[in-house]
Formats: sequence, structure tokens, C-alpha cells
Amino acid sequence: MKIYNFSAGPAILPYEVKIQAQRELLDYNNSGMSVMEMSHRGKVYESIHNEAITLLKELMGLDDDYYILLLQGGASMQFEAIPLNLLQNGKADYIVTGNFALKAYKEAKKYGEINELASSKDANFTYIPDVEGLAPTQGADYLHITTNNTIFGTRYTKLPNVDVPLVADMSSNILSEEMDYNKFSLIYAGAQKNLGIAGLTIVIVKKALTENPMSICPTMLKYSIMAKNNSLYNTPSTFSIYIAMLTLRWLKSIGGVKEIQTRNQEKANLLYDYIDNSSLYSNPVRPCDRSIMNVPFVTPSAELDAKFVKEAQEQGLLALKGHRLVGGMRASIYNAMPLDGVKKLIEFMKKFELENA
Amino acid sequence: MKIYNFSAGPAILPYEVKIQAQRELLDYNNSGMSVMEMSHRGKVYESIHNEAITLLKELMGLDDDYYILLLQGGASMQFEAIPLNLLQNGKADYIVTGNFALKAYKEAKKYGEINELASSKDANFTYIPDVEGLAPTQGADYLHITTNNTIFGTRYTKLPNVDVPLVADMSSNILSEEMDYNKFSLIYAGAQKNLGIAGLTIVIVKKALTENPMSICPTMLKYSIMAKNNSLYNTPSTFSIYIAMLTLRWLKSIGGVKEIQTRNQEKANLLYDYIDNSSLYSNPVRPCDRSIMNVPFVTPSAELDAKFVKEAQEQGLLALKGHRLVGGMRASIYNAMPLDGVKKLIEFMKKFELENA
Repeated sequence: MKIYNFSAGPAILPYEVKIQAQRELLDYNNSGMSVMEMSHRGKVYESIHNEAITLLKELMGLDDDYYILLLQGGASMQFEAIPLNLLQNGKADYIVTGNFALKAYKEAKKYGEINELASSKDANFTYIPDVEGLAPTQGADYLHITTNNTIFGTRYTKLPNVDVPLVADMSSNILSEEMDYNKFSLIYAGAQKNLGIAGLTIVIVKKALTENPMSICPTMLKYSIMAKNNSLYNTPSTFSIYIAMLTLRWLKSIGGVKEIQTRNQEKANLLYDYIDNSSLYSNPVRPCDRSIMNVPFVTPSAELDAKFVKEAQEQGLLALKGHRLVGGMRASIYNAMPLDGVKKLIEFMKKFELENA
Repeated sequence: MKIYNFSAGPAILPYEVKIQAQRELLDYNNSGMSVMEMSHRGKVYESIHNEAITLLKELMGLDDDYYILLLQGGASMQFEAIPLNLLQNGKADYIVTGNFALKAYKEAKKYGEINELASSKDANFTYIPDVEGLAPTQGADYLHITTNNTIFGTRYTKLPNVDVPLVADMSSNILSEEMDYNKFSLIYAGAQKNLGIAGLTIVIVKKALTENPMSICPTMLKYSIMAKNNSLYNTPSTFSIYIAMLTLRWLKSIGGVKEIQTRNQEKANLLYDYIDNSSLYSNPVRPCDRSIMNVPFVTPSAELDAKFVKEAQEQGLLALKGHRLVGGMRASIYNAMPLDGVKKLIEFMKKFELENA
């Protein structure tokens, strides 16, 4: 049976990436070694490391003002590293659009005067607040947003147009659609959704912003230290970086962000159209703010939801259980999810709807 | 040609581990998913995670007073996490026996009154200071040692017998020999030498020591938070943990620490005996303090050293170049290095000696 993995992260990888990793797991490029066993100071590993960085820069269309850092610890570690590196006036603004945005906001509060500039908590995070005309706090060092909200299934389609540095957690939609990535002063993302596997965290940061970390910032969290050493200050998560490099190569090979956006939009449209026209399923998100990566939906009862998840799994449609904060189901349809996976899901949803009408 | 990888880390893995990882890279245990793609909240991954913890506890013979944490960031991150979690009186002692011991000491100095209790810097770290009768500073929160010094090729054979908590960086010799691991209050190790691959850092810490981190300790560095969540507070480095689990299974299958110690001692003895009886090579370390994991050696000239490294590589003996701080060569012969690798190295050394006498 063909399996489709709808996990929110760690998540599905492109088949080509898995096959290549398997083929060269014992011997990478005739080096006689597995990538897992290579010194991070050697030439072979270095070429993998640098190719990952170059591909990120190219695929995102970044100019030369950025450091691209390959770090550890996940987005959660960045919730603290960001204020520790960026606060100069001790003030920052956050827009709270979900669980991780809230966590980022709360962690930052330990380090300065942190303001909730806008929030969609009043409607259980089912929309993105209007960012037009949003005025940052006087003297704010940055404005933090979460471009895609994995649990609630929302995404920004317009970016705040502000005169303070824009910082974004893009863990669940980096490289999923065209965006002017140069509008951001800092972009960060755990790799385990669209970039590869867990253990790697990407930080893309304007060089000028890394020069003055807070005095209590641990050495290992200082962007300046990591940048100066090309993320080789200590041993990085080498195998995770290798998988990211293969994933980026794959993205480039299929046509880059422009092409993946077309595919992602097609998958998301199919699924939302079906949900909106169904009488069993519903999605609570304001249509203009819907994520094209994470699609939450519910039936009218928790019992039916549980039955859905169980029967879907038996049909090879895995990890569809929704997050405990919203219940129901969630289909995560990241870059690596093929159109066929979404079609098979809809087919199953139709059958389930007929049987449980 | 059979290849042997003498890299100091990331380093050689047991062949059985690589083969199994390759075999199940596309489908773990009939789950239909690669371990790389699995949610860290799912039952399948959870069983891998918990097996790694259970095997560590069993192989090290740890009692129930410890948390076993599966973290990210490497030993370097722990250089700061340790004082941030353990300093209560604001004082600690460090024994400085090499480059990483020195780094740990320097990082800790930011957080309190940190004393260099002993050092072997006077003889370029070629010995371990006498620890008998060593008296910790009055009121010290802990004493930090580095049980094996990867660059200089030394190791502790006796442990300090002190009445303050003993903290040890065991990155390069954890599980290589029998030790009363319960004598330590905190043990930490990057996984990429004896435990698997980069991206995972093990911290084993007495439960009672985790209760009062410094107020400036970042959430992600708090042992209490990680312990409370069984190291699943956020997404851990799942694939690195899986490889560690396989490596620990392998160690158990061959007879555990007792058996690997016998093998490691045999490999090290062969190599040191040959070096000591050779007229070309020498090892500068005091014999009683020699590491059984990392064996540095030199010829009389830097030119000959370079020639050695080059020709060895052509014979499939990889990554023998010494660290820049000591020059010459270094053979890292971790748990996964088979006896045949050491024999082949000695064979090559003999031939090279004859040709370059």
C-alpha cells in the first residue's frame, strides 16, 4: 500500500532525497565514508555545508547583506537567541497569531520591554490581524511575526510594511511560496518541515544586526561567533545539513520556489475546495488567511474525528490527528507532499463522508 | 580497498549500525515512514527515544537518581549550561587538561568565581595532574574535569575523590571503559565519537542538581524543563537519537562496556607498544595517562608527518592528520574501530618507517 505521511513535523521528505541518502549512506561520493562519519573540518563535508548555504541563498534570492547560519536547538532556541542578539534599545514588538508566536513572545519578555502589537487570540487564532497601517512601538528594535501557523492553519499573505527590522519564524512555510525574502532582517526555521530533518535550524540574518549581542547572551547563541566561523565554531549537526542540502538540490531541480508555489497552491486549493463544499467537514480559518502548508479540519463530533483518523491510517494516510489545541484533523501538505497524496486524502474523505453522512 | 576512518569526530560508526540504518532508511519497522520523517510525538519515535535512554542507563549502570537528557548544541553548549544550572554559591573548580577543558573553564568564568584547581598546561597538556588529595575551593558548587582529552591524547585513570559534585565532559571516552559512573553528579558528551553521530548531546545529571538554575539561564538550557518533558519539550534531533539507539544496541550485543574495554585496551596497547619501540615515531604523553581513544604521534619532522598522512590516506587509512595545536598525526580508535584497523595502521607505519629511516 502506498503510504502518505501528513505529519506536521518532522515531516515527509522528497522520495528522491530519501533514495539518494540511502544509496550513499555507506559511502558518500567515493570518499569511503558515510556522511555520518565525516569530520566537520574535512573538505568533503565542507563542500556539503557550503552547498547547502549557497542553495539557500540562491533559492531565496537573498542579497549579500545576510549571514546564513546552520545551527542547532530548533526554533525554540531562537525564541531566546533573537532578543539576546537583537535588543539594543530593549524594546520589541510581537504579533501573536498562534501557539509558537505566543511562546516566542513570552520568552522574549524575559529580556526587555516586549509588546504584543496585535493578536488573533480573540477568535482562537483563526485569522491574521490586519497589518496595514500597523505602527511599531517607538524605538522598537524589531517586529516579530510567524509567517505560517502550523497548529491553526493560517498564513500571512501581506507583510507588515514597517520601518523597524522585520523578524520572522518561517519554520512551517519557508521556501513554500515566492516572497521578497530580502524584506526581512532575520528569518529562522527549524528544518524538519520544508528543509529536511530535525537537528538543524536555519538563521538568515542581516550582518549589521549581529554586532552587539546582550552581555548575558551565551557564546553558543551569538550570531557573530557562528557567522565568523561559518557555523563551524563547534561540530554542527552534519547529517541534518546533508539532508537539507539534498532537499534544496531537489527543490532547485524541479524549478525552485516559483514551481513549488504553483504545486502547493494547487494541492491546497483542491483540499480547501473540497472541504468548503462538503457537508461533513469544515475549516474554521478566514479564507484569505488560510495556510497552504497546514490544513486543519473537523467533522461535527470528536468521536467522528477519532474514527476518521483511525480509518485514514488504515488506508495509509498517516499522522492526520489535529493538534490538541484545536482537535479534529490536520493535513500538513509541505513541499514534499505529492499531489497524489492530496488526491488520495480527498478520495478517502469523500468515502468517509458518504459512509458517515 | 578496505577503508579505515581514524577521524577524531564525527567518527567511525559500527558497520552493523550503518547497514541497519541503510536497510530501514525508507521504512522503519513497517511503519511506512523513515525515522527521518516521523513526528517526535508519535508512538514509533517515542519507542526509539526511550530505548536510547534505557540502554544508556543500563550500559552505564546508573542508579535512579539521574535524568538522562537527549539535547542539542554539542558539548560547547554545555560549557555554559552547566554553570547556568549548577551554580548556587557562584563558585566552581575546573581542572584544565586540554583545549576543551580550557574552553569549558573560560566559558564558566562569565557566570561566577571559577577557579583553575589544577592544570597541565606547563607541559603542553601531556599529562593529567595528580588528583589525590586535591582540595576543592571552600563552597564550590562542583568540580569539572575532562575525562579524555581528544587533542592531547590523555585520560584520567583515577578520579578526584572530592566532596563536591563531580562534573565530567566525557565526549571522547564515554562508554569506552568501565568506570563507576555513579560517582559523577553530571556527565555530558557529544554523541559523534562513541555514541553515534553529531546533532545529539547526552546530559546525565543528578535530579537534585536541576532544581535551581540561575535566573538568566535560557529556558532551552534548563535541565529541569528538558527533564520534565523527557527531552521532548521541542523537536529533538530525532535521527541522531535513532543512530545513538542503534549504536547502544550494538554495544550491548557485543558484551557491553566490559567487553569494549578489553577490545579498546588491546588496540591501544598494540599501537603504543609499536610507537614506543619504533625509532621513527614518538608519543609525548606520560605513559600512565595515555588515552585509549586518541593516540597522537609524530615523526622527527613536519615534512615527514605530512608525507605520512598523505601516503596513509592513499592506503585507505583516513583522517590521521593531528590537530593543529600539536601537529603530527592522531589515530582516533573509538569503540567502533575494529582491531584490524589498528593492525593495518601499524603495518603501514612499519613500512613507512623502513622507507624513511
